[in-house]
Amino acid sequence: MPERSNTQIILAKRPVGEVQNTDFQFQESVIPALGENGILLQNLLIALDPALRSWMDDFDGSYIPPVQLGAVMSAVCLSRVVESRNPDFPVGTIVRGLAGWEHYTIAGADGARQVPGLEIVQVDEGIPLSYYLSICGTTGLTSYFGMLRVGQPRSGDTIVISGAAGAVGSVAGQIAKNNVDCRVVGIAGSAEKCRWLTEELGFDVAINYRETADMTSALRDACPQGIDVFFDNVGGEILEAALLNLAMGARIVMCGTISNYNNDVDDRSGPENMWQLLVKNARIEGFTVAYYGAEWAQTTLKLAQMVKSGELKHREQIVDGLDNTIDTFRGLFVGANHGRLMVKLAD
Amino acid sequence: MPERSNTQIILAKRPVGEVQNTDFQFQESVIPALGENGILLQNLLIALDPALRSWMDDFDGSYIPPVQLGAVMSAVCLSRVVESRNPDFPVGTIVRGLAGWEHYTIAGADGARQVPGLEIVQVDEGIPLSYYLSICGTTGLTSYFGMLRVGQPRSGDTIVISGAAGAVGSVAGQIAKNNVDCRVVGIAGSAEKCRWLTEELGFDVAINYRETADMTSALRDACPQGIDVFFDNVGGEILEAALLNLAMGARIVMCGTISNYNNDVDDRSGPENMWQLLVKNARIEGFTVAYYGAEWAQTTLKLAQMVKSGELKHREQIVDGLDNTIDTFRGLFVGANHGRLMVKLAD
Repeated sequence: MPERSNTQIILAKRPVGEVQNTDFQFQESVIPALGENGILLQNLLIALDPALRSWMDDFDGSYIPPVQLGAVMSAVCLSRVVESRNPDFPVGTIVRGLAGWEHYTIAGADGARQVPGLEIVQVDEGIPLSYYLSICGTTGLTSYFGMLRVGQPRSGDTIVISGAAGAVGSVAGQIAKNNVDCRVVGIAGSAEKCRWLTEELGFDVAINYRETADMTSALRDACPQGIDVFFDNVGGEILEAALLNLAMGARIVMCGTISNYNNDVDDRSGPENMWQLLVKNARIEGFTVAYYGAEWAQTTLKLAQMVKSGELKHREQIVDGLDNTIDTFRGLFVGANHGRLMVKLAD
Repeated sequence: MPERSNTQIILAKRPVGEVQNTDFQFQESVIPALGENGILLQNLLIALDPALRSWMDDFDGSYIPPVQLGAVMSAVCLSRVVESRNPDFPVGTIVRGLAGWEHYTIAGADGARQVPGLEIVQVDEGIPLSYYLSICGTTGLTSYFGMLRVGQPRSGDTIVISGAAGAVGSVAGQIAKNNVDCRVVGIAGSAEKCRWLTEELGFDVAINYRETADMTSALRDACPQGIDVFFDNVGGEILEAALLNLAMGARIVMCGTISNYNNDVDDRSGPENMWQLLVKNARIEGFTVAYYGAEWAQTTLKLAQMVKSGELKHREQIVDGLDNTIDTFRGLFVGANHGRLMVKLAD
């Protein structure tokens, strides 16, 4: 094969606090020849999640091993198989899985035919490809399992969602509404986001936390019967405020803690009022979408159906070019994005 | 009726940190005449729980209203009806409920015939009266509902209990063992307590935390498969250590947080590594035994049966005299007690 060059973004330093552009380096490399059962992926779309921040920390106790210094930054990508020595992954196949901030990724490098974590996407022509990284991908699946399996909403419940205009929160609220007769309150960071929630997505109330001095009393006003399900993407002060407004038997879905990701791993205080769980016979339950892996394929079809029928709406923001990856990722932590954030590398 | 005098312990100051004897005052008062449907209780046994510490704080968000300054310190007591204008509570009846650190308590003072929170105890001659405040009372019920309903132990589980030699922890471990085929690890504060757990109660392992420099690695050694159920009476550092050793899908039962009770209500940091819940698809769930009130009577009979058959063992420590109440209560926070702690006022 002709020698082919790869542009890669390398984790050069462990970020301290907020991610800086200088924590990374761009690198040009030659793509090596494929080994037995190897696959060469051309990455089409890179998903940018807040959780990637925790992959940059040198801490073994997370749900995936930390990215090593000098290695390509990992990310979930939608990719096309462009070379293959693996009969299970013919050239042209669209796959979803752990690749990186780079144009090309070699998968299955250990010679085995099975490639754990790499999934073949059954593309539906009626669904844009990017949806398989968003509403029909990990964010949609996260919303689905987090709300229905962990949150267990019941008829009559008051449901509060933080990060409600985000890729996960916005879909989680609609899934609750579509499944049970409930009241959904969203917390978001701008008037525009709040309007989108109530006018487009059917949320009952939206609270702009940037304009709210006292979240505890704002939640009390919005939830006079208390909160039955709190779907939390944020943690920190918003979680504290929710804990002071729980209904009996409340379920807090710990989906993410973006407010903590930039803190040192040894400096992530839990909520001071966690003992409210005791007072309210309530729970905080964490989850990762990987836990429900066996049900992804079937649930993706269900989500695709709901998207086509108009039952589920979502927003995506697609930024062009690997060069913009770091800046775009940083924007996540100031709420600059609108919906699912992706970087597009190729069609 | 002849004028009768009552000795009472009054909450004189809000404790700051550890309870001091000077936070209370003894008071002599005359027992007033009973109103319509009123009941005069002679308190026989006062239960001393760590949770009473939180009742002394001026904070409305707890599971019972705070004790007012100048009022008698509240406590759950076993009492005898010695005067009655209420046909539902004839003289001689033994009752359990919220009374106080005093010899006599008037119940049903609002004139209503029903007295919420006061329960008639069906005394079984084969069971010592004190057991109705311990293994057949609130601590036994707490162990039962906390372990079986909240912890949901399954066959093959590894179960860790903090405060394992305490009134609740010791019974919770036995209830787990009696219900499923599981491994039970207890954490306690002396070699003697540890021996009692393993040699008398059937715990598989006991860890003396006072002799353990690194609880995280001690738990890793004791639980190589990870912790499936952590029944936590302590909170703080022991909870942090447990969070770093969870198995997938773990359940943490938040029964009490004695390590926090002496901290100010605004200074009770949650665990720094609470995000491990996310990594392990795990939960922390709080509960109060009052939540299961409708099942108390039936479950008390079940516990009494298990006590008689020898299936459940427990320890009690009964201290004589109201004068010793405050000192005895303070001892709870240094682990001075062995099992359920009560103050005896009368036979």
